[in-house]
Amino acid sequence: MDLAATPEPPYHAVIFTSLLGPDDDGYASAAAEMLARVQAAPGFLGVDGARGPDRVGITVAYFRDEAAIRGWRDDPHHAATRARGRAQWYDAFEVRVARVDRAYGFRRTQEAG
Amino acid sequence: MDLAATPEPPYHAVIFTSLLGPDDDGYASAAAEMLARVQAAPGFLGVDGARGPDRVGITVAYFRDEAAIRGWRDDPHHAATRARGRAQWYDAFEVRVARVDRAYGFRRTQEAG
Repeated sequence: MDLAATPEPPYHAVIFTSLLGPDDDGYASAAAEMLARVQAAPGFLGVDGARGPDRVGITVAYFRDEAAIRGWRDDPHHAATRARGRAQWYDAFEVRVARVDRAYGFRRTQEAG
Repeated sequence: MDLAATPEPPYHAVIFTSLLGPDDDGYASAAAEMLARVQAAPGFLGVDGARGPDRVGITVAYFRDEAAIRGWRDDPHHAATRARGRAQWYDAFEVRVARVDRAYGFRRTQEAG
């Protein structure tokens, strides 16, 4: 497992937070399919995701520009999966579109051993 | 459990992604303390967090403006905890500061029962 490696800002982010409801039948395979599709989307830069035992999940996908975000939004498989999310899987979600202005990171260096 | 309820954009977000390493002694209590402190920070709007079984975690904290983000960055307890995170807990992390330009959400309405 590793974290998304993104270029120098500015770039754009879609922050998707969700609360998974009791009926998660088909969710895991659909999430895996969406992950594969977004990685192939034009202008895609990276993605991180986590879901904890309280069923709160966060996915942040990074894109080159707003046009790339619109392209991903309009992907027909993505739109169909969003509709199923509303109908079946999620008790709540929030989508936030943001522009990343600065970033810094840390990576532990391998120790000799 | 519930998702952060934020006002209409624009507002600002700090996206913190991390990969927890093998030595997580003291991590849970420090994370709980940081969560309590950020919620009391001036200009704080909301926070969501998740960490999955692969030890990837994402915390997104929302703030009114850049001054609020700087205030939280300069909180001395927060700075000390960040230093411990680098020294002990994290194999990698990334901090991204972003401006949220638009948002929309979904919340399942209670069904009569």
